[in-house]
Amino acid sequence: PSNKKLLVLPGDGIGPEVMREVRRVIDWLDRRRAVSFDIEERLVGGSAIDAEGTPCSDETVEKAKAADAVLFGSVGGPKWDSLPFDKRPELGILRLRKELGLFANLRPAVVLDPLVEASSLKPEVVRGVDIMVVRESTGGVYFGEPRGIETLPDGKRRGFDTDVYHEDEIARVARVAFDLARQRRKKVTSVEKANVMQSGRLWRAVVGEVHKAEYADVELENMYADNCAMQLCSRPKQFDVILGNNLFGDVLSDLAAALTGSLGMLPSATLGAVDAATGKRHALYEPIHGSAPDIAGKGIANPLAQILSFAMLLRWSFGLEEDAALVEAAVGKVLAGGLRTADIMQPGMARVGTSVMGEAVVREL
Amino acid sequence: PSNKKLLVLPGDGIGPEVMREVRRVIDWLDRRRAVSFDIEERLVGGSAIDAEGTPCSDETVEKAKAADAVLFGSVGGPKWDSLPFDKRPELGILRLRKELGLFANLRPAVVLDPLVEASSLKPEVVRGVDIMVVRESTGGVYFGEPRGIETLPDGKRRGFDTDVYHEDEIARVARVAFDLARQRRKKVTSVEKANVMQSGRLWRAVVGEVHKAEYADVELENMYADNCAMQLCSRPKQFDVILGNNLFGDVLSDLAAALTGSLGMLPSATLGAVDAATGKRHALYEPIHGSAPDIAGKGIANPLAQILSFAMLLRWSFGLEEDAALVEAAVGKVLAGGLRTADIMQPGMARVGTSVMGEAVVREL
Ligand SMILES: CC(C)[C@H](C(=O)O)[C@@H](O)C(=O)O
Ligand SMILES: CC(C)[C@H](C(=O)O)[C@@H](O)C(=O)O
Repeated sequence: PSNKKLLVLPGDGIGPEVMREVRRVIDWLDRRRAVSFDIEERLVGGSAIDAEGTPCSDETVEKAKAADAVLFGSVGGPKWDSLPFDKRPELGILRLRKELGLFANLRPAVVLDPLVEASSLKPEVVRGVDIMVVRESTGGVYFGEPRGIETLPDGKRRGFDTDVYHEDEIARVARVAFDLARQRRKKVTSVEKANVMQSGRLWRAVVGEVHKAEYADVELENMYADNCAMQLCSRPKQFDVILGNNLFGDVLSDLAAALTGSLGMLPSATLGAVDAATGKRHALYEPIHGSAPDIAGKGIANPLAQILSFAMLLRWSFGLEEDAALVEAAVGKVLAGGLRTADIMQPGMARVGTSVMGEAVVREL
Repeated sequence: PSNKKLLVLPGDGIGPEVMREVRRVIDWLDRRRAVSFDIEERLVGGSAIDAEGTPCSDETVEKAKAADAVLFGSVGGPKWDSLPFDKRPELGILRLRKELGLFANLRPAVVLDPLVEASSLKPEVVRGVDIMVVRESTGGVYFGEPRGIETLPDGKRRGFDTDVYHEDEIARVARVAFDLARQRRKKVTSVEKANVMQSGRLWRAVVGEVHKAEYADVELENMYADNCAMQLCSRPKQFDVILGNNLFGDVLSDLAAALTGSLGMLPSATLGAVDAATGKRHALYEPIHGSAPDIAGKGIANPLAQILSFAMLLRWSFGLEEDAALVEAAVGKVLAGGLRTADIMQPGMARVGTSVMGEAVVREL
């Protein structure tokens, strides 16, 4: 067996159909590049609830911990919308992030030249946009305690959550952002509401301390989250790396992705800490887009984000830079050749479905 | 003295200079329409800190409570950035919202036809956009307790906030949103993260209950906040009224404002409950834009958002529909005539400063 252990979790909605196209790419690598993987596939999210009674079983967590990398699809759908809070499909991804310690969610928002026209923004506003959002992903309001809905003595309900950060949680994700900025355009925009939130005040302070002590060569800018949303929409090119907590990172990375106009193209990586003994780190790769239940099963979903997530995995978890670049180049060529799935369709291009797009990538390889 | 008691709070940055233009409009109304006001002007925010040692004195709060309406400018600036959390200029507006019970912050994002080109989005995407964001503004993470930064036994810091909503707080602001939708296109999009937050789960439940019991004629759509940010950017025309908590409402209303491309044009209103005895409600009117310290004092700020905030005040607090419409029409004519401040400047138009713009509005009146 190969030493490259991969756990594949297609999930719900369009997850399985776009993952199928990745399998073709994997087969090609196996045959032509002698890069082989030890692959296990399991259920997660709603499909795991249906089959196993839980969105992410203990066994799946164990397999994920034992794997060198996890390739994730997407979870959720109307079918499971009325389930109780502690049974919902989203727990699939949330539990994996938490139990594997995947604290740094990296979400690139890149406008590819052939897709400039797909954006709802003017071409001159988005051409060349290349943003990396670093979102903290194991803390904050997603996991903070206490939380709940309580019934008061008069029968009325009160819902509450806790947004909480320890300074070490802030510092470690800030370092990921600064390290990335060093390899890019050397600018980090750290986002919070330090003017109204105490956790935001600590966030700004700690990011500033890490910057001063370790990254004086990188430019640091602090920005309120509301202003950042505005600036992303009006002048996105000003950004290089955006750093935010779990909640602001969620909203702003989706906004950054949306402004590229090609959500179906965007991969992401979520990384854990490097183990001092082995030099390894847990990592999970998934598209930015969700399970898109409205188009699931129709064979029209764009498989490119899932394929590009796999390319990220090749590069980051296995150091297979050359193979990652091959896959990315093949995607570029397919787009340059005029193939488009419905989500990125433009006049004059050829509209294709999921599997034709997947085949085209393999052909370019 | 007139029975129209107005408290004017210009605040910091460009606040005083844009408020000066409103005073011209008020003078005109006084002279030509015999609509006169009993006006008091006071300091708020950073300028109040400098002069009175507090961003919003008890006396200012008392005057605001006694007034029929408050016209607010904007607060904050780098000069006060290093002040302790409980001394910052932002407390000026936060304290007023809280003490006057101004729980419903109404933030329209309208793309005016002559300004379609000012948007960073494509004209076909934004032409005709007319969104009203209703933001809850006295609850949630802005005021929730406990909150603070604590030092743990090992000397490390931990920052925390509480995002909390009582069902009555949700229901009353939902009613404001549904009532507005009834006068508009009859659709409310309620935004939360019910998939990760307990307060969001309660939010969704209560909005659904109010809808079912009282507003079945209005369409209700529930949307996650991350998805809403995305949809605002890619297909803004789908929205009529957007309803969100204090934090999501803050970020999403700024995003909605940004996509119009004319932030300097957008007014807002923040309303309290209707007093059962007097039929009156507290109300504060302010532009969406901030204090813009970078351009303050240069005479180039756009005074139209502040003038339009005053028009909202005429209509909503005093029922002076005709006068409000006069002011709005004057603004429309000035724009149609080609005058532009720097923020909305477009090729072929005439660039003017703050006071020329203010004068032009009065001339059109
Ligand atoms: C599925 C959901 C819990 C998740 C989140 O909010 O983190 C998703 O929106 C994401 O961004 O990965
Ligand atoms: C000044 C600040 C406290 C305020 C807020 O966050 O509410 C501002 O951003 C706003 O939206 O009115």
